[in-house]
Order: sequence, then C-alpha cells, then structure tokens
Amino acid sequence: MKLDHVGIAVRDLSRAVERWRSLLGEPEGPVEEVRSNRVRVLFFSSGTAHLELVAPLDPESPVAKFLDQRGEGVHHLAFAVPSVDQALSDLLERGERVVDRVGRPGARGRRVGFAHPSAFGGVLVEFVEVP
Amino acid sequence: MKLDHVGIAVRDLSRAVERWRSLLGEPEGPVEEVRSNRVRVLFFSSGTAHLELVAPLDPESPVAKFLDQRGEGVHHLAFAVPSVDQALSDLLERGERVVDRVGRPGARGRRVGFAHPSAFGGVLVEFVEVP
Repeated sequence: MKLDHVGIAVRDLSRAVERWRSLLGEPEGPVEEVRSNRVRVLFFSSGTAHLELVAPLDPESPVAKFLDQRGEGVHHLAFAVPSVDQALSDLLERGERVVDRVGRPGARGRRVGFAHPSAFGGVLVEFVEVP
Repeated sequence: MKLDHVGIAVRDLSRAVERWRSLLGEPEGPVEEVRSNRVRVLFFSSGTAHLELVAPLDPESPVAKFLDQRGEGVHHLAFAVPSVDQALSDLLERGERVVDRVGRPGARGRRVGFAHPSAFGGVLVEFVEVP
C-alpha cells in the first residue's frame, strides 16, 4: 500500500511553507480550505509521496486541539487505497476503532477516512481513495 | 527532495510488525541493530518511501526517552540527499540547529545525519545519503 502523504500540523502556514520550501521546492498548488475538517492545507511533492501542511481554520478545529496538546509536528500518515469504505470496514472487522465509519470529502477532491490512532499504535492513519 | 522513510517509534517490534503488515504486507528485510543509535529497526516498502519501525535496544536509547515522553508514534521523517554533510552544513549556514554536524553510519549501510526538531517546526528530520 502506497504512502500518499504525511500530514504536518502547523500554526502558521506561511512560516511553515518557507521552512519546507528549502527542502522540497515549491508547493504543488494553492492553499485549499477543507471545511469538513476546519483546516487550511497545502501540499508539497516528495517522491511518490507528498507532505501536507495542515493549519487550523479556527480554535474548534481538531488540528487546533492537537496543536494545543502536542505542539507542531507530524499529525497523520495517509495511505492510498482503492476504497476508503472497504479499508475502514476491514479495520472494524478486526475489532479496531475508527474515527470515520465511512468515507467523506477531503482535500484535493478525494474521498478520505480516518482510523483511530489506537489502530496503529498511536499513529493517526488516513485512507485516501485514489481511483 | 524525495521522502526516503517515516520512522515510527515502537515499544514492541513484534506487535508493531503485525499491525503494519496488515496495511503494508511483508517487511523488507530482517531486523537490524543500529548500535550507534541503540535501536532495532525494520523497514516496510510503501510507494517510493518506506516505513521504519524503531524500537529501543536499551533504556538509554534516545528512542526509549522519546517513548517515555510522547508514547508510540511518528518519530522522524527522512529525506534522501546526495550528501548528508552538505545538507547539514546548509542548515547550519541558515542558522538552524542540528543533532549531527556531520554524517554517521545508519541503518541499511547508509550514511545519515539528523537536524534538530526546531529546524523544521517540531519535526525531527533525518538526511539519508543515497548515492
């Protein structure tokens, strides 16, 4: 299964872009608002994977809570799957916990869904449907 | 710059292998001891990137300290560079902090070096020399 991207929680998107641009070059696209997650995101390309900078849209964003508790840093790992619903139901069948029971709209027009961090030993795993 | 791998700190390598095998299939090789870092590591392939499970060899391992403070989870992001020494000295020239001022032997026979987490907004970045 292919690593699609690494999500990094940041407080200040502009400062973070400057920092990562020095390693990864120009970001891939304009900043995108993902209202379902109350975040603003921006992607860089890095091999077949991407780095996603994730900044909260408001203090109620789940990413704002993450930043308050853990500070800036890696937030999630996302893997490309043919079906988000199938990946989530496979986890449920194995007795694991999930954040989303079915997929929902995510960044870049993709269908996404999150497992619970307990399913992968403290790592928040996202599934991204890549046709 | 290509993402080489994501390092994940785990307490119990065998349990972690079971967990990630369900997503990523069989690991790439046998468990390797990296004595310079006091860790045991194992890699999975995921697109052009890899997942590295990192378990402490003893309680004095830097990874044991990470686990005590933060619990299991993503430990570092590693990027492939033509020269680790150059990548580290570029950071120093920009006034950033580093863990290693020059490269040293790492897993898979590669030369590696770590930036300080402050250089990338809380993300521990490793450089891996890939010829």
